Amino acid sequence: MAKVRVHNFSITLDGFATGLNQRLDAPFGDGMEGLHDWMFAAMEDGATGLDAERAARWNDNIGATIMGRNMFGPQRGPWEDESWTGWWGPNPPYHHDTFVHTHHLRPDLPMEGGTTFHFTDDPVEKVHQQALEAAAGQDIVVGGGPTTVQRYLRAGLIDELNLAIVPLLAGAGLRLFDNLGDTLAQYRITEHLSSPAVTHVQLTRR
Amino acid sequence: MAKVRVHNFSITLDGFATGLNQRLDAPFGDGMEGLHDWMFAAMEDGATGLDAERAARWNDNIGATIMGRNMFGPQRGPWEDESWTGWWGPNPPYHHDTFVHTHHLRPDLPMEGGTTFHFTDDPVEKVHQQALEAAAGQDIVVGGGPTTVQRYLRAGLIDELNLAIVPLLAGAGLRLFDNLGDTLAQYRITEHLSSPAVTHVQLTRR
Repeated sequence: MAKVRVHNFSITLDGFATGLNQRLDAPFGDGMEGLHDWMFAAMEDGATGLDAERAARWNDNIGATIMGRNMFGPQRGPWEDESWTGWWGPNPPYHHDTFVHTHHLRPDLPMEGGTTFHFTDDPVEKVHQQALEAAAGQDIVVGGGPTTVQRYLRAGLIDELNLAIVPLLAGAGLRLFDNLGDTLAQYRITEHLSSPAVTHVQLTRR
Repeated sequence: MAKVRVHNFSITLDGFATGLNQRLDAPFGDGMEGLHDWMFAAMEDGATGLDAERAARWNDNIGATIMGRNMFGPQRGPWEDESWTGWWGPNPPYHHDTFVHTHHLRPDLPMEGGTTFHFTDDPVEKVHQQALEAAAGQDIVVGGGPTTVQRYLRAGLIDELNLAIVPLLAGAGLRLFDNLGDTLAQYRITEHLSSPAVTHVQLTRR
């Protein structure tokens, strides 16, 4: 069975996944500088060890990606134009169908390297089905941000959630573990392991 | 200079220090069973290693303890009688002056072994001064719960905060990192280290 997975989802020690004032020069908002330093270091050529092994999983047997509009870009509201094609340059690292939840639809956006962004205002259950078909038997990653992960958690669609707790204090922003009701009762913690840089935690659906 | 320290303050992975419905048979509330298992194991005779070393610090060079009323007992509102003398039996583990913040005053309560509970509705700054005098040059521990720790953090009185992040999910309750405004900007993270059971984190005032 194809799984829905979250990988390398980084939160601060005080629980925030994004800070206040997300913008072009601060994609994760105030106080979040350095949130992904562990991941960039872990993805360098020749990197080994726990962080490298965990960081690499986001790309292992994945056939489709789902994200929220805030993960795709810094704009809010209607698109001013369609020149923004994501944070990742002409050849995004996904190389497969990538679904972007947004109320502001745009035509499909095929990129170099096999990534095609599909903009959708469908409910999560329907996007999940579309992603399953696109993935053709491989797993699906829900990339982020926190609001999108919460939607998929509440819908009971996430099988495995891999977090990194980063020793930073943001003070304000959006928490991952919020707006979840009793959803977390459906999960158990199946890994809890630190590197010098971060603590890796895995939640698995019961 | 005598310091004000917090030790072995345990929070769940989702950030909660107490759950809902704290009561006599669930002192930390719903979903918090097991929150301190790591600490009890670490305090057993002959225990060694990171958890044991960290757990022992709460009792090293401490001359006074401060706590909130909810850490002293499960009752809320006016005391029905004064038969409740704390969770710890006739000989509490403090062995020094221990200040209990409460709106419902009681006479000083001397216990076996040198612990005397002082009930106070003074502001934190004044209790801090009283505790400093009682400690006679040794450090002070602020024990908990989260509301009391937050009050001392907001007042800028805590020098060192030692947390344990426990791989449990509570889902609801009181978070440690809440109601703090920009207080955390005054702290840096000076330790972040896991045992198989928990992640130890130290915040130190800049």
